[in-house]
Amino acid sequence: MTSPFFERIVVVGLGLIGSSLARAIKRGGLAGTLVGVDASTAVRARAEALGFADRVLADPAAAAAGADLVVLATPVGAYRAIGEALAPALKAGAILSDVGSVKGAVVKMLAPLMPPGTHLIPAHPVAGTEHSGPDAGFAELFEGRWCIVTPPAGADPAAIEKVAELWRRVGMKVEAMDPAHHDLVLAITSHLPHLIAYNIVGTADDLEAVTKSEVIKFAAGGFRDFTRIAASDPVMWRDVFLNNREAVLEMLGRFTEDLTALQRAIRWGDGAALEALFTRTRAIRRSIIDAGQADPEEQKRRDDAAAAAARNAAARR
Amino acid sequence: MTSPFFERIVVVGLGLIGSSLARAIKRGGLAGTLVGVDASTAVRARAEALGFADRVLADPAAAAAGADLVVLATPVGAYRAIGEALAPALKAGAILSDVGSVKGAVVKMLAPLMPPGTHLIPAHPVAGTEHSGPDAGFAELFEGRWCIVTPPAGADPAAIEKVAELWRRVGMKVEAMDPAHHDLVLAITSHLPHLIAYNIVGTADDLEAVTKSEVIKFAAGGFRDFTRIAASDPVMWRDVFLNNREAVLEMLGRFTEDLTALQRAIRWGDGAALEALFTRTRAIRRSIIDAGQADPEEQKRRDDAAAAAARNAAARR
Repeated sequence: MTSPFFERIVVVGLGLIGSSLARAIKRGGLAGTLVGVDASTAVRARAEALGFADRVLADPAAAAAGADLVVLATPVGAYRAIGEALAPALKAGAILSDVGSVKGAVVKMLAPLMPPGTHLIPAHPVAGTEHSGPDAGFAELFEGRWCIVTPPAGADPAAIEKVAELWRRVGMKVEAMDPAHHDLVLAITSHLPHLIAYNIVGTADDLEAVTKSEVIKFAAGGFRDFTRIAASDPVMWRDVFLNNREAVLEMLGRFTEDLTALQRAIRWGDGAALEALFTRTRAIRRSIIDAGQADPEEQKRRDDAAAAAARNAAARR
Repeated sequence: MTSPFFERIVVVGLGLIGSSLARAIKRGGLAGTLVGVDASTAVRARAEALGFADRVLADPAAAAAGADLVVLATPVGAYRAIGEALAPALKAGAILSDVGSVKGAVVKMLAPLMPPGTHLIPAHPVAGTEHSGPDAGFAELFEGRWCIVTPPAGADPAAIEKVAELWRRVGMKVEAMDPAHHDLVLAITSHLPHLIAYNIVGTADDLEAVTKSEVIKFAAGGFRDFTRIAASDPVMWRDVFLNNREAVLEMLGRFTEDLTALQRAIRWGDGAALEALFTRTRAIRRSIIDAGQADPEEQKRRDDAAAAAARNAAARR
């Protein structure tokens, strides 16, 4: 019998991402023993019931003792306390990794806590849904998506490769990136979209001239896509914005500048400027579909539409 | 044999909405004769090939002669010229309607053109996809969605009911609304979401520090949902903003005010304010799902996730 990819893996935080990772590790037989850790009694009870970990514990330090890999999957704001608790328990050669959506702050927080001979290899699997908690997870979440590994300068190449290979084995494509550059890329592709979605849903919620029931009824006109994003986990996202402030403010500044120009074009009836922007943005959508990074459901709907068009053509009179 | 709901229906503009309406009318046997009109030679050729209309013409006036119902489904900016051309050809008792996303400007444009004894009953089926053109249409587009009928003051009740019933027969729920109020409701549920989506995709396209390939690769973090909306028809959306300026600027002003407050919360590290907003916005999402107005694909994914959770529970050890 071949030995598992890691002898003992600990996943701290058993929400959407942590429980999905645990399920994918179990499915792939990638751990000799998989230990789940969560601070919440209710989450631990669900995790026990769902059975995606071999053991479920409350104490990260007890779980980390003897671990070959520890993955933090809590909101980033909880990392410092968890890191302080578990880092001293890490054995020589152990790897500490995570799944957080910010990386510069994570390296800054955790690197000073690492005992000599252990490895800090942060990572960010860019995948998710708007649902939260251990019941929302599923093993297929990562398939076909990108994982960004952001090792600090001087990190051990073998440890980097071990973490990269774990993500590959759960279905992801892996790219290495400098932590600061990661934070800039994600600020525009993820953090700003979430901020804007949260904001417009809040604006709609505050209106007096339009009732809540009208907003809900007629959401199919575009608004509902924003509500899906704005249903994402509040604590996780609070911590993202608190820990990627500079990059988010930079992207937000550019967004607002552009929006002001658009506002001016509407006020002055500059149809040519509006049409030019609206035409340019179509091309990016096509590139995302071509790169296979559209939502799987959207990709399916697109395929269905093409099939319907073919049927229509066949039924021509 | 029962007589069709309308003897002769003319649909002007055979893009996504016009061709979907034509298909739905045909499927339901709602017209004795269905005439499609489009200014584009290429679109007319596709319409002939797809066969969703009994006849396809270039000239709206020739098509409108003898029609019981004419539905405009072109970008709103083309209404005035089309209205001027076809209104004189309308017979007594004929109804002129449309599917445009703005309604105040439409009433203002078309009402003065109506010959005595004819009826102007504008409507807005709130349904669509990001795809355009006659091949993108399908008969099921309207099912379960809302159609807003916005008759001008003093409109004939029988004509209003006839238009409302047509939309019911293609699967929609119908609500009547004052044109000005429609424009306010849609400004927040549809027009502002599109404007913001177009804007952020433009901002991302202009970055120097983040490459286009990075934006595309990592779009799964939230950005891709905006690109879908920002792939909508440029001319149609240009005309929406030019023709609903006041309401869009009002909603945009509120949005920007709220975004500035959010920016300040990020700059000053006010985690409580961020978490409070992010928690409040979750409730609206739930209401949209409960009202059955979530995207059908999303609803399906939600059901699949629930089924997976049930399987997980069954597989507990």
